[in-house]
Amino acid sequence: MDAIDVIRAKRDGGALTPEQIDWAVDAYTRGAIADEQMAALAMAILLRGMTRPEVARWTEAMIRSGERMDWSALDRPTTDKHSTGGVGDKITLPLAPLVAACGAAVPQLSGRGLGHTGGTLDKLESIPGWRASLSNAEMLDVLRSAGAVICAAGSGLAPADRKLYALRDVTGTVESIPLIASSIMSKKIAEGTGALVLDVKVGSGAFMKTADDARELAETMVAIGKDHGLRTVALLTAMDRPLGNAVGNAVEVAESVEVLAGGGPSDVVELTLALAREMLAAAGLSGKDPADALKDGSAMDVWRRMISAQGGDPDAPLPTARETHTVTTPSTGVLTRLDAYGVGVAAWRLGAGRARKEDPVSFGAGITCHAKPGDTVTEGQPLLTLHTDDETRLPRALESLEGAYEIGGPPSLHPLLIDRIS
Amino acid sequence: MDAIDVIRAKRDGGALTPEQIDWAVDAYTRGAIADEQMAALAMAILLRGMTRPEVARWTEAMIRSGERMDWSALDRPTTDKHSTGGVGDKITLPLAPLVAACGAAVPQLSGRGLGHTGGTLDKLESIPGWRASLSNAEMLDVLRSAGAVICAAGSGLAPADRKLYALRDVTGTVESIPLIASSIMSKKIAEGTGALVLDVKVGSGAFMKTADDARELAETMVAIGKDHGLRTVALLTAMDRPLGNAVGNAVEVAESVEVLAGGGPSDVVELTLALAREMLAAAGLSGKDPADALKDGSAMDVWRRMISAQGGDPDAPLPTARETHTVTTPSTGVLTRLDAYGVGVAAWRLGAGRARKEDPVSFGAGITCHAKPGDTVTEGQPLLTLHTDDETRLPRALESLEGAYEIGGPPSLHPLLIDRIS
Repeated sequence: MDAIDVIRAKRDGGALTPEQIDWAVDAYTRGAIADEQMAALAMAILLRGMTRPEVARWTEAMIRSGERMDWSALDRPTTDKHSTGGVGDKITLPLAPLVAACGAAVPQLSGRGLGHTGGTLDKLESIPGWRASLSNAEMLDVLRSAGAVICAAGSGLAPADRKLYALRDVTGTVESIPLIASSIMSKKIAEGTGALVLDVKVGSGAFMKTADDARELAETMVAIGKDHGLRTVALLTAMDRPLGNAVGNAVEVAESVEVLAGGGPSDVVELTLALAREMLAAAGLSGKDPADALKDGSAMDVWRRMISAQGGDPDAPLPTARETHTVTTPSTGVLTRLDAYGVGVAAWRLGAGRARKEDPVSFGAGITCHAKPGDTVTEGQPLLTLHTDDETRLPRALESLEGAYEIGGPPSLHPLLIDRIS
Repeated sequence: MDAIDVIRAKRDGGALTPEQIDWAVDAYTRGAIADEQMAALAMAILLRGMTRPEVARWTEAMIRSGERMDWSALDRPTTDKHSTGGVGDKITLPLAPLVAACGAAVPQLSGRGLGHTGGTLDKLESIPGWRASLSNAEMLDVLRSAGAVICAAGSGLAPADRKLYALRDVTGTVESIPLIASSIMSKKIAEGTGALVLDVKVGSGAFMKTADDARELAETMVAIGKDHGLRTVALLTAMDRPLGNAVGNAVEVAESVEVLAGGGPSDVVELTLALAREMLAAAGLSGKDPADALKDGSAMDVWRRMISAQGGDPDAPLPTARETHTVTTPSTGVLTRLDAYGVGVAAWRLGAGRARKEDPVSFGAGITCHAKPGDTVTEGQPLLTLHTDDETRLPRALESLEGAYEIGGPPSLHPLLIDRIS
């Protein structure tokens, strides 16, 4: 087999054969296909697309590039969630322990933030002592003792995806639905979960800006799941405004703990419960209503066990930022818009996110939203509080908030739950 | 400026700005854009195309990546020819001295063969002592003493094109008309010729298989020439059958010398004269009829001076192959087809061409065609003679000749001169 023949086949609009796909993914992982050849192929895939059988085979080849985890030693069904990422999206934090409290095991491999979207591992690392890196044996121990585990994916999982993602990141070939879908699904299938719920975000703060694009991505991922015998459901959910009131790292952990304590912002509670019900249904569990597990403290118990099992102290005070700055409401009326992207970029610039993969994040940095779209607001009252360790970061953060909110007539918003694809 | 922004702009179907083009070509030459990024951009250009202003600017940027030669010290106008390459295309060999004999200077930078198409430098190197590599000062000396020079392009000429061509070769991004056109034209413009005639080959043995594709390439190159103030004309010419009777290296030199001596196959003579007339007209010279310069020996005189000036002995016997094998005519009738690609691959496999850039060629290897399409042939008479230094190469060469010729009714052929674009 020859790399140029494979590139040409896709370039000229053809479908790759299963043998071509298997060879290309394996040869790239081994280094027998050069980066420049894979970059040309990725661009051809982005512009020419892939058929459903091609995407399924590509995903399969990426799974086979590494280990496939196995949770059959557990006495309960596994179920997991993946979000395409957004601003204030801390849902994994209350969700994983909640679903575990209802009888499922949740083996959640998460990632770090890059750009204006946050990362689950960065948020959890603001808890003193908490460790993101676990061996497979440690993962199994935490799953057994707590029912849920949230940790970093090891390097043995879908190494082809890891290498290809880094290449796509620098070659303008990220925005391909077949490549995005196969990247996400290869990791989730290799992770060994028995059921999967996808939270596909839509709006300015999301990767997919329109519901049509999000639906195409969701349908592609659900099809891959089906083709691999994984029970998969996708929800399209709103990311035109931030999720919840807190955007950052420690501030999002605090908000998640509020939800686990039976409180918290209504949108975070609503989405957490909707995803929990889907995860439990997909795992064949319908005995316990997750709303009860928030009320009776059982979800909080799992959270505490899970955090402790990974070295964290659930009672330790969370880091706070050295400086705060308040943005006040400019006029009295209804908050009609609070743009997720603007708020996300501001939080990122305050230090909550990283510009390059190797940068550290500031745990205390971020933004607290005192009102959400649809709320009545009063002139002079606090609208947003900005948290940062470095006051020189404030001007550029405030710049990205210019035009990010509007006060006026009735708001025009996505409903929180936009669609369900199964 | 950022590589990913440039890739995205082209990927999404936009036109690159002059600043983006200048930056991308320069940054790639300097190594500030990685190979994988340029490969993705090249694939996006191949699939999305380029506008005429984009192609002109891209060409300009490649020219500016290196030196631009200057022949203003000469007392006569310069004119040159470029062929897109084919099977048996030795036209440069008689053409350059012929045009010089008619009063122009011909500073011809040529290339080597790769794949089934031959290279002018490989052919000339079969002349004992002849050197392809000259300094700029040596080139000027040969031009002054002989009126024509044929040599290898130095590494200072359009280094961006050199680097980009090597990348396209391994990434399935060769077949882009804007990239082919800008590659050819950047070298020819940097070469400093005052007029240029393009011989764009059409047919099975050519890069462009159809007249439509060839016309698009020709029009693109003529437009680039115009945009750079270079008088440029293109002829579309037939490459569905070999040009002349000889295909190889030394055998093509011998056929070229026959033409310079006033003989040679009629198609080689016809095309040589047509191109010579175009080159002279483009240079503003119309005093001497090139047909006379073949008859009166003045073209042959230039050839002998040119070969001697580059260390070659025009009287030395040419290398011959150790083995010959004759393919006889299977039936009596008219030869209706003799496929350029099949014959080209056979000559390549006999040793006339190279599989990898670093391979040597066999000077004696090749094919002699004893009939051309349209000729009446007699069963049992020689049709093709195969020359090789290594008889183990014969079976695979014969394989590529299977189905490459047909004997029957009247032939269906491209006229030798298909079209003229100016």
